[in-house]
Amino acid sequence: MAPRYAPSLRYRLAPLLLLLQLGFIIIFAFFAEIQSKADVDGEPVSNIYPEFQDVNAMAILGFGFLCTFLVRYSFSASAFNLLVAVIATQLALILNGIEYHRGKIMLDLRSLVEAEMCTASVLISIGAVLGKTNPVQLILISLLEVSGFILNKWVLQILLKGHLMDRIMALHIFGAFFGFMLTWILYRKGSEQRFEKEKFDKKTGLFSMLGTMFLWMFWPSFNSVLVDDGRKLGAMYSTYLALAVSAVTAAAVSVLSSPKGKLNLIHMQSCILAGGVAVGVSTSVIHQPWEAMTIGFAAAVVSTIGHRYLKMHMLLAFQCHDTCAVLSTHGLPGLLGWLAHLLLQIKDCDDHTMAIQFAVFHICSLLITITLSLSMGTITGLLLKVNLWRPTQDKKCFDDQAFWEFPHLAALK
Amino acid sequence: MAPRYAPSLRYRLAPLLLLLQLGFIIIFAFFAEIQSKADVDGEPVSNIYPEFQDVNAMAILGFGFLCTFLVRYSFSASAFNLLVAVIATQLALILNGIEYHRGKIMLDLRSLVEAEMCTASVLISIGAVLGKTNPVQLILISLLEVSGFILNKWVLQILLKGHLMDRIMALHIFGAFFGFMLTWILYRKGSEQRFEKEKFDKKTGLFSMLGTMFLWMFWPSFNSVLVDDGRKLGAMYSTYLALAVSAVTAAAVSVLSSPKGKLNLIHMQSCILAGGVAVGVSTSVIHQPWEAMTIGFAAAVVSTIGHRYLKMHMLLAFQCHDTCAVLSTHGLPGLLGWLAHLLLQIKDCDDHTMAIQFAVFHICSLLITITLSLSMGTITGLLLKVNLWRPTQDKKCFDDQAFWEFPHLAALK
Amino acid sequence: MAPRYAPSLRYRLAPLLLLLQLGFIIIFAFFAEIQSKADVDGEPVSNIYPEFQDVNAMAILGFGFLCTFLVRYSFSASAFNLLVAVIATQLALILNGIEYHRGKIMLDLRSLVEAEMCTASVLISIGAVLGKTNPVQLILISLLEVSGFILNKWVLQILLKGHLMDRIMALHIFGAFFGFMLTWILYRKGSEQRFEKEKFDKKTGLFSMLGTMFLWMFWPSFNSVLVDDGRKLGAMYSTYLALAVSAVTAAAVSVLSSPKGKLNLIHMQSCILAGGVAVGVSTSVIHQPWEAMTIGFAAAVVSTIGHRYLKMHMLLAFQCHDTCAVLSTHGLPGLLGWLAHLLLQIKDCDDHTMAIQFAVFHICSLLITITLSLSMGTITGLLLKVNLWRPTQDKKCFDDQAFWEFPHLAALK
Repeated sequence: MAPRYAPSLRYRLAPLLLLLQLGFIIIFAFFAEIQSKADVDGEPVSNIYPEFQDVNAMAILGFGFLCTFLVRYSFSASAFNLLVAVIATQLALILNGIEYHRGKIMLDLRSLVEAEMCTASVLISIGAVLGKTNPVQLILISLLEVSGFILNKWVLQILLKGHLMDRIMALHIFGAFFGFMLTWILYRKGSEQRFEKEKFDKKTGLFSMLGTMFLWMFWPSFNSVLVDDGRKLGAMYSTYLALAVSAVTAAAVSVLSSPKGKLNLIHMQSCILAGGVAVGVSTSVIHQPWEAMTIGFAAAVVSTIGHRYLKMHMLLAFQCHDTCAVLSTHGLPGLLGWLAHLLLQIKDCDDHTMAIQFAVFHICSLLITITLSLSMGTITGLLLKVNLWRPTQDKKCFDDQAFWEFPHLAALK
Repeated sequence: MAPRYAPSLRYRLAPLLLLLQLGFIIIFAFFAEIQSKADVDGEPVSNIYPEFQDVNAMAILGFGFLCTFLVRYSFSASAFNLLVAVIATQLALILNGIEYHRGKIMLDLRSLVEAEMCTASVLISIGAVLGKTNPVQLILISLLEVSGFILNKWVLQILLKGHLMDRIMALHIFGAFFGFMLTWILYRKGSEQRFEKEKFDKKTGLFSMLGTMFLWMFWPSFNSVLVDDGRKLGAMYSTYLALAVSAVTAAAVSVLSSPKGKLNLIHMQSCILAGGVAVGVSTSVIHQPWEAMTIGFAAAVVSTIGHRYLKMHMLLAFQCHDTCAVLSTHGLPGLLGWLAHLLLQIKDCDDHTMAIQFAVFHICSLLITITLSLSMGTITGLLLKVNLWRPTQDKKCFDDQAFWEFPHLAALK
Repeated sequence: MAPRYAPSLRYRLAPLLLLLQLGFIIIFAFFAEIQSKADVDGEPVSNIYPEFQDVNAMAILGFGFLCTFLVRYSFSASAFNLLVAVIATQLALILNGIEYHRGKIMLDLRSLVEAEMCTASVLISIGAVLGKTNPVQLILISLLEVSGFILNKWVLQILLKGHLMDRIMALHIFGAFFGFMLTWILYRKGSEQRFEKEKFDKKTGLFSMLGTMFLWMFWPSFNSVLVDDGRKLGAMYSTYLALAVSAVTAAAVSVLSSPKGKLNLIHMQSCILAGGVAVGVSTSVIHQPWEAMTIGFAAAVVSTIGHRYLKMHMLLAFQCHDTCAVLSTHGLPGLLGWLAHLLLQIKDCDDHTMAIQFAVFHICSLLITITLSLSMGTITGLLLKVNLWRPTQDKKCFDDQAFWEFPHLAALK
């Protein structure tokens, strides 16, 4: 039986992709310029290319394989992740060009890395709706979210003159709340009784572990790649230590909070990353290793508890079905990092007035980010509900078969 | 029942490997020299070691896991890939030494990378006969093809004074046509009705996706590692953009050309790489990002259509069974890159005479490469047909059991 | 039925982890200092960060996935590996700080890499008891072994003034003998008839292959990262060549020694690394490529034969059940590297007295290392036998279910 919505990919996905791609090529043809000077601001290329590749590996392999755990949705998870990533990166290059360079799209390693960071916020969000959207919807999400995130960066710069790093690292909070709103609006009746296919098996769990490992290993590059040379190594060590502490703490809290006193695989895959998120958000004010480690400790506690209780609570009480629990993985640690940033900065201020001024600015920047992400999430969610995109039927959720042809699949599973 | 050809590995593979390896050691003992000076031509080591490792990861992990998709042939695919890679690299180091350094085998990062590029052409070719050859045959292929490829580089240099990069990047065309010829000569009757074991399952498909991701991510390093410093970053960005465009385009064309309007996994694994191939072949004349993106677009279209129609057509009409469809993955995009090179170079010529001269040279270099690859492929194919190597029986094709002992394999699946 | 030892994780693992982690944070708060100067000894950061990430990938991905081959123990293998790695690294940072910097924990890339090398010796040892210990025991092992290994480094420095590289590269010998002793003391009756669950399947075998590939690829970084700039590239090439030779030789010997003349997957996963081990131990005296290649050849022969015969012999004759055969993978090649070091150094000595003096020193350093590793292994083994840690029951060995909760595991395997 041919599924009813089968044509949707042909008549919607293919034209959308082709139009977008041709549009991007035309825009690049008129506005893009290669910054081929090896030394940008006296920094030789070798300093940043390996880190660019680390960030690249996180975006493509890390996020791509982290989401393969669903037993029947692994191909879609990894391939759509790639598709979303390349579209979001191209759009982010263009929009960042408009923001910084007066309409010129400058291509250098820094601009590529910055574009991939905007992409990361999209990859976080789509974790919340993993398995419940079709690729057309995913591409719309990526277009709207990249625009929203860059708008947010721009607003923060205009209104509050925030540091570049702080504005970019808002990606965790932005992505998490965007995804949260999205999945709340796209709620499907019956999600309380878990979907039949929303399961993992031992092998897909291992693929997911592989993705986690890539994220975990390369997070120090992610947090330090855009930091100035003097503080770059500090950011790297801080992130490394915070991640190490997170791994230990997540295991401990997972066991403590388990009714049977056992470890939970999802916690060992998501919560061990919490330290990287939190330190990333507060990286510009961390000066001591123990600060990073304490933040990593707290982030892992918050994240694991969020995974254990918040996810289920949100589903039952708020009808918000967050497949990858991005709110607990990126949202709560991100907020904690924000708080740590506030406290550490105030501690460093000699002056009362400056401290208060900073606090007001910092709180405003959070409020702006959350407001923008929630409102962009709402707009996107409402747009995606339109029947035009042929949303996946409930019984076809979490299933590769809706999108892939398998001519030569072995019969044995 | 002990399979009849079981002894072949012991009496053929083991002596061949040992003899080859001892021979290589002796040659290295007399002729190899470490170029331990950190700065070769004023270029510090740090500039190229990370990229060397990226190329290494492509050869070992990328190609190795890309070929694991066959459900019963994953161990052989990844392990034989490694075996072929290390033998081909050692031979390429020796032959490149003869070519460039008057019989001295110089060991530095550039010579290692160059040897791995020669190896890449072998790894491409063996994709065409994947599952249908035994390891002895694979090693013979690697010896003959490396020799052929280096002969080709040498002929191009002597006759046409081609650029090093252009001569090396002919590897895609050389490898594809070599593999094509090989699999045509080694055709097995009955291939039209797909072999029973020539299938993938969901987990091996994911391993294959992993290999693809490594190739996709690190391709910018592959295309730029040997480029001079001034143009290195440009080659990197071009490749990155071309790959991004390829991914989007391959998805679109795959859906458009599918009878059911669905995506095809093989296309999302092979055709997203087409942009990297095409830009690699034409990298020395690409100056604008949009040129790279357009080439990536065209390459993905050609490659996906090739996968959809050409592979089956070649099997039924020409009796050529190309397991990994290397002709569509590397051959057609390579030719397209060659064409783009020609057009872009002519566009840049101010002078009519120079343009014609270049065109003649460029066409000659293609003809030489194709002729040499087809004739070396023919020679190799005929040699492999000799019964001495005990070719794998038809019913043991695509099966690990012919080559591996499994004493403690779990009974379940 | 709730397993009887289920509570052990909650009441033992969680408090242990939390106490350790909080303790580490407090120690770091008082003694750690970031060495944020980019140039340590005139060496720019870019020279070593990519290699640090390679070593990191080996520790986390390489060792983690190498051990996933057991069909029901993959989650534990990869996750416990991470847990042990981060705890061992933090402890090693602290103890190295006490050793070198008079109580100051200096954080820079070199100290991180050195800490990860100490960690590597633990990751080797736990391969010997893979599947037969609970996480509490693994953490005790990591604490005791890191202390033992750093004690060994310190003793070698005080007594024999050994080179830093030689002292660190003793990690293979130290780890292998420590693990050997450990598994001998923790012997479980009935191990002669292989445990029911001590098996691999085709997919876990591939994950294991993935881990191997990461180790194999990045081994040149592992052996060269701490070497001084002038000799760094030489160490890299030597390791690369030795690994290439090992891969070829291991395949040949595996086929030769197989009753059916077939390849063995375990050999292709462990023995291809033997060259890296042996060259690592002798790296400071290797000046010619052929020396490295010959060492790689001999190491692969020894390691493969060890795998084929020694493992079974040790189990039946000595009642020592070494799950990953670390004695053959790291122990024998390590000893061979030690011997090669001795012979090459003596060959280079002009003077008889100096040669004898070196030989005495070199033999003493081996004896010290083995004595310390065996005695620390004995102490650790005896400590682990205490019932307090609730050792895993025999029938729950090699089984994830003892440690993990699986709420949403798909029923289909």
